[in-house]
Parts: sequence; structure tokens; C-alpha cells
Amino acid sequence: MKRQSEAGQFAPTERTTVRRGARRANYDRETIHRILDAGLVCQVGFVVDGRAAVIPTAYGRIDDVLYLHGSPASRMLRALQSGIDVCVTVTLVDGLVLARSAFHHSMNYRSVVIYGQAAVVSDPREKLAALRAFVEHITPGRWPEVREPNPGELAGTLVLALPLVEVSAKVRTGPPVDDEADLDWPVWAGVIPLETRASAPIRDPLLAETIATPAYALEYTRPLRPE
Amino acid sequence: MKRQSEAGQFAPTERTTVRRGARRANYDRETIHRILDAGLVCQVGFVVDGRAAVIPTAYGRIDDVLYLHGSPASRMLRALQSGIDVCVTVTLVDGLVLARSAFHHSMNYRSVVIYGQAAVVSDPREKLAALRAFVEHITPGRWPEVREPNPGELAGTLVLALPLVEVSAKVRTGPPVDDEADLDWPVWAGVIPLETRASAPIRDPLLAETIATPAYALEYTRPLRPE
Repeated sequence: MKRQSEAGQFAPTERTTVRRGARRANYDRETIHRILDAGLVCQVGFVVDGRAAVIPTAYGRIDDVLYLHGSPASRMLRALQSGIDVCVTVTLVDGLVLARSAFHHSMNYRSVVIYGQAAVVSDPREKLAALRAFVEHITPGRWPEVREPNPGELAGTLVLALPLVEVSAKVRTGPPVDDEADLDWPVWAGVIPLETRASAPIRDPLLAETIATPAYALEYTRPLRPE
Repeated sequence: MKRQSEAGQFAPTERTTVRRGARRANYDRETIHRILDAGLVCQVGFVVDGRAAVIPTAYGRIDDVLYLHGSPASRMLRALQSGIDVCVTVTLVDGLVLARSAFHHSMNYRSVVIYGQAAVVSDPREKLAALRAFVEHITPGRWPEVREPNPGELAGTLVLALPLVEVSAKVRTGPPVDDEADLDWPVWAGVIPLETRASAPIRDPLLAETIATPAYALEYTRPLRPE
């Protein structure tokens, strides 16, 4: 499969060619990176005994690689490390689209779907970089402050790399699209924007009183709305 | 499969028996309903040509049935209506769990996984009730105000019902759990709570100025944090 990094676009494949709502399809690398960086949880789909399983899990991204991790005892990771096909999605809901007709109710959203095979990361430097990416993904700037993984923890963490090759995004924005005949229907229509917001951090009860809450916890934000 | 509605608990099956982090498993009907009602988007996993596909989509719930819908031309719905196995997940992120060690970073979350087969809803009354559930799921109280689906729209909407039988939840709450040896590590530890919040509604540019914004749009909230 060709990677068109020069053009800043991923090449659509048979599976990533969006058929329904094709005008919402997006293969732009920056758009896809931004959605992945804004999300917190991905959904990993794979086949077990001929049937689909979907598991929500955290992730990190470095360049064009999505990293997954967990215990070597995890059923999901054991299945994935054998090199089976996965389908990974990240979905952000940006707003509720309230139309005049029930039929045209919708949501504004950004989603990414990645197809591929995840490979075990065995290089210690790449593995540490991936673990750093997990922590920095949820709290940028935190990695240098925390205790780094020790050899036992490194051995006890399975890290898988899923290259962003067969990947696409779908994005809906804007107001409802009602039938013209309904435009006079006497009901409010529009969008209720939604975003993920943090509230006041909760200190670990075991934390020493002398340790102040850092700015990244006090003013935590994620770019969960269209930028 | 036995449905233990009397006890308010779903019966664990081979696939819904949580193995990793079993103390977080939950089969309580009310807990599962509440997570499904708080979520906005589910992830539908199914097998196409031997490989997993995962598609994010809206849903509605009535009692112990989850409804999915879309165009009869949708690849997902065409695949599902043939009676194949699906795995549907709903995931809510309630907080970031910042531990002293990189290794123990985590998230507080609530998730539901449903296994089963989705069946086409052909009874017109059940179909209309499902469409009502979709609208009421995102904006309770809105259905009576909007234009109901007309015969063409009803025919043009495929509704699938997935019974909640093989279903389980997983819930993590509370502070980080660090190793005792790390408790003196000089970094802030605790939880950053997250929730989905609405901002000011955006009127459809085509909306008559005389129509006021309803309270459910002005004060939109979802119970996306543990109640």
C-alpha cells in the first residue's frame, strides 16, 4: 500500500473509501492526526472464533503510528500480537443536530477508522517512547515528572504498533438539513455544541499536602471541538 | 440464555465474563441502562469477509432492547440484517487517573459491551417507537414537537433491534493506585474529572426569529458522570 506522506493525504483503499455520506470523507493527514490526538479512547475491533469483539482502550500516537498497550495476559493483546486484522475507531461527538423533522436529526462528529495489523513493539527504545506517548497523550508535559517504568513494568507491558496506512476520517459539521417543506414547522432547530470539559482536580487522598496541583490539572482542556 | 430480570442482573456468559480487572465487572441492569442512556454513540463491530469492521452510530434504548438505524443502503445495516453476530460497545470517560508512576496511569470510565444478533424491526408500531427513542435519547421531550416520520421516511429507514441479553459493564472509579514505594514521589497525583458539557445552542440560520430557544437546548446536560 502506498503512503502518500508527501501530499499530506492518506490514499483511500477499498475499505476506507467512504460510501455513505461520501462528502464527509476526509483523508487529510493533519485532520486525522488532530482527531486522534483529541480523543482519549479508541475502540479495537477484531475477530475471535469467527465473531467480532470490540474493546475500548487507551492509546498514544507518534507520527503515523498508533500504539496500544496492556497486560500480556489481555485476551485482546494476545489475539492482536498474533498478527490478526484489526479495525480501530476513534469517535468525537461535537454536537447534537436538531432538525424540524425527526428524520433529519443528526450529530456533528469527527471519527477516524484505521484498518491494519498490529505488531508487537520489541525494541526497548520504541517501547519506552510509546509509553511516554500514552502519558503525554492524556497530560502533555507530565512524563518528565513521573516515575519511569522499571524493567519489571516494561516486561509486564505489551505494546503494539498499528501503522496509519489504511485510514480515513469522517466529519459532519454545520446546521440541520431539513426538507424545504418543513422549514416553517414551528419548532426550534439548530445545533447544541458539546465538548469534553474537566472539573476541579481531585487530589489522591494519599498525596502530601505540600505538593501543589499543577497547571495542567487545574486548567485541563482538550481540543474536543472543531478547531 | 437465561434472562434474570427478576434479580435486576444480567447473567454472565462465556463472552461477557470479565477476566481482566474482574473486580470492575458489573452485570446490574440499572447500571447498564444508565450507561447506555448517558452515551450518545455506540460502536458496532461485525465481521465482513472474515475481518472485523467497527462503525460508530447513534442508538436508542427501550427497556432491554438497543435500537440501531440507518439507510437500507448502509453496508453495516445490510450486513447486520442478515442476522450476523455483532458486538456493540458504549464507552464513557469519566476522568483521567494520574498516578506517580507512568505505569499506573489510568482512566475512570464506564463501558458496556453487548453481544448478540440484531433483527430487523418490521412491526410499524415498534419501528415508530424506536425512532421516537432515537430522538428522545439525545433530547428528551423533543419528539412531540417535531414532524413525525412520513411513510416514505419510514420505508427509507432500516431499524434493527439488539436485545440486551449477553451484556456486561465495566466501571473504574476512584484515585490512582500506586505502588507503596512510590507514594513519596514528588509529583501531584489524583483524578481530573471529565464530563460532556453543552455550550450555547446555535440557531439554524434558516430559523424564524420568532421561535424561541427551548429550555432543553439552553440548559442541555447529560448525566455523563457517575451519579
